[in-house]
Amino acid sequence: MDKTKKTIIVFSGDLDKAMAAFVIANGAAAMGDEVTMFFTFWGLNILRKREKIKAKKSFLQGMFGRMMPRGAGRLGLSKMNFGGMGAMMMKMVMKQQNVSSMEELIATAKEQGIKMIACTMSMDVMGLKREELIDGLEYAGVATYLGEADEANVNLFI
Amino acid sequence: MDKTKKTIIVFSGDLDKAMAAFVIANGAAAMGDEVTMFFTFWGLNILRKREKIKAKKSFLQGMFGRMMPRGAGRLGLSKMNFGGMGAMMMKMVMKQQNVSSMEELIATAKEQGIKMIACTMSMDVMGLKREELIDGLEYAGVATYLGEADEANVNLFI
Amino acid sequence: MDKTKKTIIVFSGDLDKAMAAFVIANGAAAMGDEVTMFFTFWGLNILRKREKIKAKKSFLQGMFGRMMPRGAGRLGLSKMNFGGMGAMMMKMVMKQQNVSSMEELIATAKEQGIKMIACTMSMDVMGLKREELIDGLEYAGVATYLGEADEANVNLFI
Repeated sequence: MDKTKKTIIVFSGDLDKAMAAFVIANGAAAMGDEVTMFFTFWGLNILRKREKIKAKKSFLQGMFGRMMPRGAGRLGLSKMNFGGMGAMMMKMVMKQQNVSSMEELIATAKEQGIKMIACTMSMDVMGLKREELIDGLEYAGVATYLGEADEANVNLFI
Repeated sequence: MDKTKKTIIVFSGDLDKAMAAFVIANGAAAMGDEVTMFFTFWGLNILRKREKIKAKKSFLQGMFGRMMPRGAGRLGLSKMNFGGMGAMMMKMVMKQQNVSSMEELIATAKEQGIKMIACTMSMDVMGLKREELIDGLEYAGVATYLGEADEANVNLFI
Repeated sequence: MDKTKKTIIVFSGDLDKAMAAFVIANGAAAMGDEVTMFFTFWGLNILRKREKIKAKKSFLQGMFGRMMPRGAGRLGLSKMNFGGMGAMMMKMVMKQQNVSSMEELIATAKEQGIKMIACTMSMDVMGLKREELIDGLEYAGVATYLGEADEANVNLFI
């Protein structure tokens, strides 16, 4: 176990929870920690490219893909979202308060060398393909996560 | 602290979160780890028997019991459930992709000797009785959880 | 790392999740552990004073403040809340079963010397001011959380 390693499973694709995950991850990386983020289920939506990507999918996978938000700029809140109004309000307050946006938080995470892993099993279940996700990711399953978690001293599920 | 021990608090009774919990638990057990799952609040619904069980309850406990899903086959999604349609769609995709169903994941957990503990305080609050839950569980409270967590190196709340 | 230290990030402001957080925290403190609770986002609502407090806010911050519950007595459930009916039902069952209320759980946490930290960045985003929160809190950011987590052996995100 390494005191300077942290892992975060990012299960949620809600704006507020994604922010919490990246603020913790970036904070730890800034303090010199090695950080691994493991994106599963709805959390994968944070990593989707903004534009529509053509990908070979089954009918059901296609339906899921169309209904889920494409990327960090389109996430909703876990509470009081009101069809996107809540998320928009929160983004405006964040700007007023000089809090980094989700896009900036992801860019900082990349700059700081945070390892971002997309869970391949979840990708199958949600019907998301590699070409739909942003660059710079690694692709792996639960065994890789567990290996990373065994070396870390803080492991969160968000 | 033991590098080969993991605990997961399963608070959520959503299909997607329950899957995440069992995939991590089964993965760890397959790698030789000792795993304890501690089921609280809505997570107890994952362990309910499919059939209706008669049990002595207060009026309010009875109401809760009737409104909550009975067992792993009836869980909804945490997002985009659409009255069960979302969960049904996800199960169909899982079948297409040869991903284990919740029922299979629970059976594997039992086979691998994962310790499954039902939180007795939550059972009181949710009005769930032992005869309503599947076999092979242990029954305990927060002190037992904390004792297990103290011996583990990865502790998640899902 | 200290076997007798625990941290809990309380992100959720739902009654059921807040209860889980405080039951674990109080249980650990009762067993002699040092416990730090770090309240972020909706979790801050658990710490709001019951009465309406005048505070200087931007228009958007004021809107958020009015829509969010004021304090532990007004939290909803994460599931089956039905506009507050679910929360009311759960509180009645808790009374029947002699389970401590949220207010009692918070009082116990204070008596046991649990360190309760309000996340200042989240306060800015949610538009909550110090005068709106209960007494006895500390105020800090993610670096403080990470310092505490590094010394603990169980770190949960709820």
